[in-house]
Formats: sequence, structure tokens, C-alpha cells
Amino acid sequence: MGLVVQKYGGSSVADAEGIKRVAKRIVDAKKNGHQVVVVVSAMGDTTDELIDLAGEVSPIPSGREFDMLLTAGERISMALLAMAIKNLGHEAQSFTGSQAGVITDSVHNKARIIDVTPGRIRTSVDEGNIAIVAGFQGVSQDKKDITTLGRGGSDTTAVALAAALDADVCEIYTDVDGVFTADPRVVKKARKIDWISFEDMLELAASGSKVLLHRCVEYARRYNIPIHVRSSFSGLQGTWVSNEPQGDQKMEQAIISGVAHDTSEAKVTVVGVPDKPGEAAAIFRTIADAEVNIDMVVQNVSAASTGLTDISFTLPKAEGRKAIDALERAKGPIGFDSLRYDDQIGKISLVGAGMKTNPGVTATFFEALSNAAVNIELISTSEIRISVVTRADVVNDAVRAVHTAFGLDSDSDEAVVYGGTGR
Amino acid sequence: MGLVVQKYGGSSVADAEGIKRVAKRIVDAKKNGHQVVVVVSAMGDTTDELIDLAGEVSPIPSGREFDMLLTAGERISMALLAMAIKNLGHEAQSFTGSQAGVITDSVHNKARIIDVTPGRIRTSVDEGNIAIVAGFQGVSQDKKDITTLGRGGSDTTAVALAAALDADVCEIYTDVDGVFTADPRVVKKARKIDWISFEDMLELAASGSKVLLHRCVEYARRYNIPIHVRSSFSGLQGTWVSNEPQGDQKMEQAIISGVAHDTSEAKVTVVGVPDKPGEAAAIFRTIADAEVNIDMVVQNVSAASTGLTDISFTLPKAEGRKAIDALERAKGPIGFDSLRYDDQIGKISLVGAGMKTNPGVTATFFEALSNAAVNIELISTSEIRISVVTRADVVNDAVRAVHTAFGLDSDSDEAVVYGGTGR
Repeated sequence: MGLVVQKYGGSSVADAEGIKRVAKRIVDAKKNGHQVVVVVSAMGDTTDELIDLAGEVSPIPSGREFDMLLTAGERISMALLAMAIKNLGHEAQSFTGSQAGVITDSVHNKARIIDVTPGRIRTSVDEGNIAIVAGFQGVSQDKKDITTLGRGGSDTTAVALAAALDADVCEIYTDVDGVFTADPRVVKKARKIDWISFEDMLELAASGSKVLLHRCVEYARRYNIPIHVRSSFSGLQGTWVSNEPQGDQKMEQAIISGVAHDTSEAKVTVVGVPDKPGEAAAIFRTIADAEVNIDMVVQNVSAASTGLTDISFTLPKAEGRKAIDALERAKGPIGFDSLRYDDQIGKISLVGAGMKTNPGVTATFFEALSNAAVNIELISTSEIRISVVTRADVVNDAVRAVHTAFGLDSDSDEAVVYGGTGR
Repeated sequence: MGLVVQKYGGSSVADAEGIKRVAKRIVDAKKNGHQVVVVVSAMGDTTDELIDLAGEVSPIPSGREFDMLLTAGERISMALLAMAIKNLGHEAQSFTGSQAGVITDSVHNKARIIDVTPGRIRTSVDEGNIAIVAGFQGVSQDKKDITTLGRGGSDTTAVALAAALDADVCEIYTDVDGVFTADPRVVKKARKIDWISFEDMLELAASGSKVLLHRCVEYARRYNIPIHVRSSFSGLQGTWVSNEPQGDQKMEQAIISGVAHDTSEAKVTVVGVPDKPGEAAAIFRTIADAEVNIDMVVQNVSAASTGLTDISFTLPKAEGRKAIDALERAKGPIGFDSLRYDDQIGKISLVGAGMKTNPGVTATFFEALSNAAVNIELISTSEIRISVVTRADVVNDAVRAVHTAFGLDSDSDEAVVYGGTGR
């Protein structure tokens, strides 16, 4: 009977029918005795259409104005959703990010939430209303300008509001049934995960799983807000993301949570780097100064004969040009031989807190890849994740092989559970 | 070198090309040394599309949510316009009605402006920016909810901002060259008016001229803000609306400003009303309580034999049903015989401050109608206007006949000027 924050993405409210379907679901939650706060994204393709319009009037739109433009999208969806709820006989009020007290820094297009002061939302729900809040947007603390939160912003709005309102749960409604052990488009036998820890979810998100973004999970972990990812099209239970499994969720906790893959990255290799202190630092300072985010970093063993080594790293393809240009300019001072750029790579990651205490996991992983004739180019590990880089065209085969090897297939009885054999 | 407020309507910013054309015009004003504040409407059909969407999710949308929805339209156009201006190398910032300090009452969909506190706009232009403000919208004083101003709201926003900022002029850009002596679609020889007084413009607006709405002119008169109505498609001078003509405008001031017509009204006749004190009051209290706005009111001479009279009035067709229902319910207490409803009427009005001192005007007007074989059903006059109601299908002929009779045709040398013969 507590307060529930629900978030609906653009695909759930793509048209008037979608909005009416979502309105019914929200009213059901209200009828069940909950106070309900809803965060909504822009309808379907609205944001893309607005971006196209901006492109027509200006090749490089101003950040402030771009944010003002994009936030029109949620304004439309939230008002329509409130109308649809009222049409079902329940009271609803919509609020912009600013009205909902979502205070951000001033970095337009990818602002970060600094504070949430949800006084108007609290008053609205205490008066018996369903509060509808625009996702993805806020207002800057210093200039009172409208800001947007960047990718996954609506999920982050929902989690931040849930934290500020001390909600029981943050329900993220989407067009899939939850988080799966692998991307179901690649692995037909992928299973829906009933419960996953914040830590494993963070690693999956960082490794290419698209269902929840890293930033939103991080926020939920910091404030310990359980997330329930579920479909707005079905009535099924989805995936719970929280600190501790509850009830019968515990039974199913496996060593391995899932297999993620990512083909959106490219690999840069800096060839012939003098093997002496400060070289890697110089390279990565150059990259950082160019505001490029990198992912994996691997340094090969230096060849004793030459005193030179190679350093490889991966980064989003979209930032490849920027990184290469920055490094070329710094070639003299840093003193490397050459650069190699490769955007035909893929990354496969195995994630699971159980692997910390199960040394056999790594071996099983590499055996599975070997049996599938997948060649490994880079390896990187954390305590609860192993990632490898391969050719892009073998990624799908590799994901399926690993998924099967760890007993994750939906028709398998061999799911590796805590206390299992750790093969 | 003062401050100019410019307003651009939806047809001027209907697409990306329109936005870029308007941006150039704004930058030209800035280059001429003016501080520039721009009020912009939603692009082309945006508002209609949003209204359609609302209709799809709810037959009777909530006023608060409807306003939240519609204001997305200006948010899009103003952000795009600011981007387009910045793309021309000038600084621009967009502001919502709320950010611009447009404070209204809480009557959603047709809020009235209570106050304008344009601190952010003043700061923005003082810093050298062109400020772009969303027309048609504000924020309610008590609840801080988003409101819209109803029909002609963007023009009113522009005039209100011009008053609050003590602007030199409020330029209303539209898709016609200015205010004409008659509707150019009906009268091919209609002439653009170079200058017109607030009073004459108010009468024209009340009589069916669509270029400026009554409400906006009233606001401009109260704060003595000269309005310049002109085309955003041409570079021509348009029509100045102000207290006093300036420079060579004075030369052209005619007795008659123009001929307006209106076919959007219907006529209600209350038949057989006892000719005694209080009857008319009872009828119009009934109408007022039904929140119906009426226009002309005419009472015929009572027939001595019966002691009964007829009272006729005109009102917008859209409100006809409401008025008839209210009167039917009050038939017993008021004690009239029957009601007649007629929506096949038209109104022709002749407007000009000069007619006060020129008794021949009325005679010329009726002679022109008579010569055109137009039958007159109702007559109503003010000091600077004569209006008649006729059958709807003769309105266009009537307008042309009157326009010619007063020498207003563009190829005529006979324009009736101050000190003229007053025929």
C-alpha cells in the first residue's frame, strides 16, 4: 500500500492506443491501493522527429535550445496520459521535470541530477492524484534553464524520484518481458531472469545489455531502490533488480547471471610504444583530454628485443575519429610508431557474482569459445565479469556457445546454481 | 535604437524554411541596432495535430492537461527559431511563457494575463541576446500551473511583453500585408490601410476583421503600445495601429477606415415578449448565466394592439444551442411566445471615427445597400460604426457595394478624407 513509481518508455506510449493501454495499467495500480507516480518518455519517434527538425535549421544546434526543443516530446506524452487517466475516472496531474523538482547541473544534453525536491509531486499524490512526470528532463540549479539527462534519462528520472519519495519500488515498463540471460534476438533459448543483483546488472549494462542503462542502476544501488523491469504489453512478472533476492527468488540465483554482447565498439591499437613509465599515462591523458570515453584497455607483454610494446583499447565507434585525431597530434611527444583502427570487432561478456568463488568459470568460458572456433583478440576481467574481444561476425555464435555451456538455455536443466560444481 | 517586440504567427514558421526566413528578418532588426524580443506561435498545424491527439485519448480533455499539451507547440517553434538565429551568428535564448514572467489567472484554455514580470527577458536582451518567447502561454499566479491564453493569445503575449518592457513598437508579422479596407478575398480592390486608430481597429476587430483580435488591440490601447501589422513574407510597410498618426500617415486619414463582415454568427429572435419593464433584463440574465456572449441586440417597436414586442440578438453560431436551451428552460417565468433561430445571416459593418461628424455617412451606406438590392434585417450603430444584418448569401455583394460607395476601391480617387464632403 506504499508509493510506486512507474516508468513507461516511448514504445509503450507510441500512439493513442498505447497511451490508453498504459492508462489502464496505471489505474489498476491505483485501485490496488498504491500511491502512483508515473514517469513517461516521449511518444515513439517524437524525439527523432524533433532532432531531424533541429538538423534542418542548424547543423550544430545550441545545447540549451536543443534541450528546450526535445523536452516538448514528454510534455505531449505526459499531458495525453493524464487526460487518458482522467477519462477512466481517476484524478491525474502532469508535471514537467522542473515542476517535479528534478534539479540538474548545467551540462546541456547530458545533465546529471543534483537533487530532487518533489514537494509538488508529494502534495499531488497526497491529495489522491496520480502524478505524471516528464522523464528525461530537469532544470539547471544555477541558471534555471531546461536541461535533458541524455540517454536512459527517463529511467534515471524514475529511480531518482523513487529515491526522493522513498518509494517501495521503481517499476520500469518496456517492450520486453525483463532482463534476459542473453539478447533473445541472438539466443532463442535465452531465459528471463527473475532476480539479479545491482552489481551483476551493472556489469551487464556496461557490457552491452540494453534493457537498463548503467547510470540508472547505479543510482538505484546508491539509494537501494528495488527496480522491477517488466513489459507494458503483458501482465507478467519481470525481472527484479535489488540488493537481496526475496522469497522464492533466492532459489534460482545462479553463478552466472547472463551473457552480454556489444558490437558498437571499435578497437584502437597504439603500436610500438616505448616500454617505460609514463607512456600509458601520456596516451590516456591525450584520450581523456579529447573527452573520449574508453572501455577495455590491454597492454601486451613487451618484446625484450625491442623495448617496445603495444597498447590496445576499445571505445564507441562514434568516438573513433576523435581519438585517432588526438593521438596523431600527440604522436611526436608520446613517441609511438603507428596507430591501428579496427571497427569490425565484437565483445562478449560473461557476468555473475558467483564466478568470484568458482575458478572453473573462466576455463569453461574459454573452452566454449574454442569449441565454437572463436578466436580471441583481447581479454579483460573484473571480479564478476570476463570479457573478450573477437571478430564482429562471430559474436552471435560465440554468445550462443557460451550461453549453452553455462546451462542457461531455457530447455536446459543444467543451470549453474550457487553451490554447484563450478565447472 | 530602442526595444522592438516582434510576433510571428504559425503560418510564418510553418516549416524549417519559414523558420530560417524569419530568423533572417529578426537578425536584420538586431543589426539595425534594436534590442529584439520575439514572440512566436506554434508551427503551422502543430496545435491542430495536438488537439486531434487529445481527442483520441479523451473526449473531454482536462483543461489543465490540455494546456500542458498545447504549450509543447511553442516550445518546439521557439527552440528551433533560437537555433536558426544562432546559426546566423547571433546570440539567442528561448523562454517559455512561465520563464518570461507571463502571469495569468487560473482559467485554463482562455487565461487572462494578470501581470508580466519580464526580468529574465530584460537580462537576456541587456546581455546582447535576442530573446525568443513562447506565445499563447503563461503560468497561473496561484497554482503555478501552465495556462494558455486562448484565441489570439500570441498577439496578446507580444503586446503585453511590449508594455512590460516599454518597447517602442510591437510588430505583428502575419501572412498578409496589413489591415485592409475590406477582406481582400471578397473585395479585390481592397486597399491596405497605412494607419488606423486603436478605436477604429477595435470596431473592425469586433465586426469580423480577423487580422488582429479585439483583445490584443484593447491591451495595446490601454498601455499605448503602437502595433505595426505586417507581412513576414515581404519587406513592405504594413498597417500602424496607434493613438495618433505620424508623419505622412496623417494625410491619408479617411472618414471611413474600412468595411468588415462576419458570417460566423446566428440570430435569435424572442417572439411575443410582454412590453413591460424587466423583460429584456430577464432574457439577457438568462443568456449571461449560460455563459453565452452576445453581439448585437435589437428590440422592435411594440405593437400597440397586443402589448407584445420581439427582441432579437446575434451570437456565435457555436453558442446557439446553449442559448436556445437556456431560454427554453426559462420560457415560463419570462413569458414569451416562441423562439426563432436563424444561422443563415451575415453582418456588414462600416467603421470610421470620421462618421461621428459626418451625418451623410449613414445615408450613403443605406443607399449603397439598397442599390445592391440587399435587404436589411437588423441595424445597430455605435458612434464610429454602423452594422446591419442581412441574408448570408448577399454579404459579399453588400461588402463590395459599400466599399465602392465610400471610395475605398484601390483604383478610386474618391476616398473620403477628413474635411471631405461627407456624403
